Amino acid sequence: MANKPVRFGILGAAKIGRKICRAIADAPNATLSAIGSRSVEKASKFASDNGLSAEVKIYGSYEAVVDDPEIDAVYVPLPTSLHLRWAVVAAKKKKHLLLEKPVALNVAEFDEIAAACEGNGVQFMDGTMLMHHPRTPKIRQFLSDADQFGQLKMVNSIYTYAADSEFIANDIRIKPDLDGLGALGDVGWYCIRSILFAADFQLPTTVLALPNPVLNESGVILSCGSSLFWDDGKVATFHCSFLSNLTMDTTAIGTNGTLNLNDFVIPYDEKEAYFFTSSKSRFNELATGWKPVSSKHVVPTELSQEARMVGEFSRLVKEIKEKGSKPEKKWSSISRKTQLVIDAVKASLDRGSKVVEVGR
Amino acid sequence: MANKPVRFGILGAAKIGRKICRAIADAPNATLSAIGSRSVEKASKFASDNGLSAEVKIYGSYEAVVDDPEIDAVYVPLPTSLHLRWAVVAAKKKKHLLLEKPVALNVAEFDEIAAACEGNGVQFMDGTMLMHHPRTPKIRQFLSDADQFGQLKMVNSIYTYAADSEFIANDIRIKPDLDGLGALGDVGWYCIRSILFAADFQLPTTVLALPNPVLNESGVILSCGSSLFWDDGKVATFHCSFLSNLTMDTTAIGTNGTLNLNDFVIPYDEKEAYFFTSSKSRFNELATGWKPVSSKHVVPTELSQEARMVGEFSRLVKEIKEKGSKPEKKWSSISRKTQLVIDAVKASLDRGSKVVEVGR
Repeated sequence: MANKPVRFGILGAAKIGRKICRAIADAPNATLSAIGSRSVEKASKFASDNGLSAEVKIYGSYEAVVDDPEIDAVYVPLPTSLHLRWAVVAAKKKKHLLLEKPVALNVAEFDEIAAACEGNGVQFMDGTMLMHHPRTPKIRQFLSDADQFGQLKMVNSIYTYAADSEFIANDIRIKPDLDGLGALGDVGWYCIRSILFAADFQLPTTVLALPNPVLNESGVILSCGSSLFWDDGKVATFHCSFLSNLTMDTTAIGTNGTLNLNDFVIPYDEKEAYFFTSSKSRFNELATGWKPVSSKHVVPTELSQEARMVGEFSRLVKEIKEKGSKPEKKWSSISRKTQLVIDAVKASLDRGSKVVEVGR
Repeated sequence: MANKPVRFGILGAAKIGRKICRAIADAPNATLSAIGSRSVEKASKFASDNGLSAEVKIYGSYEAVVDDPEIDAVYVPLPTSLHLRWAVVAAKKKKHLLLEKPVALNVAEFDEIAAACEGNGVQFMDGTMLMHHPRTPKIRQFLSDADQFGQLKMVNSIYTYAADSEFIANDIRIKPDLDGLGALGDVGWYCIRSILFAADFQLPTTVLALPNPVLNESGVILSCGSSLFWDDGKVATFHCSFLSNLTMDTTAIGTNGTLNLNDFVIPYDEKEAYFFTSSKSRFNELATGWKPVSSKHVVPTELSQEARMVGEFSRLVKEIKEKGSKPEKKWSSISRKTQLVIDAVKASLDRGSKVVEVGR
């Protein structure tokens, strides 16, 4: 029984599902059991496009996946507006839940999802893959080092990509009834997550969305920025956009050290990721150069970050199924905090860039 | 006559003067003629500390330097509150003017300085050394490339350093009557300059200083941030501070490309500087990595950026002296724009983070 893999069903034939299929195949403790889409044709096409094994069941509805008693867990990459409904249905059917980000349209919805998971004893985790890269704990080690990094003072995070005209016209991520949070939910989510990570998940007290966001004609955010403030004087800024070249920078600065990442969400190379640190940086005697300069740290990984995510989620599911453990609440706590900041930034934008308190 | 170097006098024994002494020595068309401080003792100490030649005249006042008919140009690293007075005196004495940044306490003061230079036919240049590194035109080439970089959308710039307790208690840069602009004038100046450079010196329309700056008990800025907005949708943010580890990041993102610099003010290494660019960055098929990743460009330089600055300034002075050319106005125009943005950020801070229009 201990070697029985967690059996996954996927709700929807989203493009991101292709990557997760591969991750499920790579994870040692997971297997793909079913794919469900709004029609059997779409599900079949997804299966053949992705070379799925003939053993993977093809369903023409999401219901059929969550109703299948031979499925332990569902991965839900549906548009955000459908998360509440399908996450809650899945939890009630006792399916463990790996939910794509943004987890919900707002924290009230997320709280319903989290309550459904808790009430039904199922594991929740969102699909923020970067949390599972072995680079991440190495970075934590640096940020926690009182001597080498000191006290966190500032974080800046940028995630932009240049969507093509087809995306800008038709993608679900610019449709108000599907992914109403637009770039804030799609890429801003990661900026906020990286800032919260740097702040060791201490929530900011207030946010101020920067003026002049770019919205489409339906009012969906194509590009925006925000600043975040903590009572102890820490500050952060982020910028997220569908309108600029693919860029993923996070810089965290402490009293004694600096962290730089240029590919914080998806590493340049799947097999090894790196990050840069500097500590107690000074100029040389005449200020004609630096000593020391920043150091590059390379972190190899056998498994991709998404396979590690599936693996960690499956490990927790197996602990519950096989040992009767309680679900690990850390993951829903982190999701909720990320959503709380998203909500505050959205509220600040909606109020014409007024300072908004972050909910608790 | 064509080989006669420009004869410099230095007003004040500031620490930065040591670097400029070396730059004057290195520049092929400049020579140091005099150092003046508030006392002969201070000036003598500066001369001996820096191993100046016995031919360099030692003066116990700033007046004596500007009165010396054998001096062509002065370098003025005095506290900002003294710039107006001494820059105008120097210009009236027909001394060409290399003035440390921030150039003035506000643009009204700067306009008096610029008018004095113009009225007396002397060259003006501020001491922003990075403008003269051969890396800078290489970066311009990238940012101007409509295909590789496209249209500028966003710039973020950070310059922080961890001042020690002696600095925080006593340095001129935290004294309201000396350098009243604090970190905004000292390091924010460079952030603004790099943003303006990326925007090809198009001024933003408005700025919004971020809430919660850190001020000392005299109200001088120790740490602050701001966002900048252009009518065409470009945005920028910067953060400047005396309270965090030495960090110098500038990221500029266009529709097609990204520029990253981690040492934009003073390169890590005096002999070669680098920058990173990426163009048309995409994920690979399954979004498990990037193609292409960013490229590193190395720009060697024989002369330091400050020696090149002295050299370019001296070249312009010699054009005026030897060929009767008019002063090059580009440098005062750039200084003025930088000061205009400083003024707007300061006004926004003073008004509790209200949006402020940038003067023209």
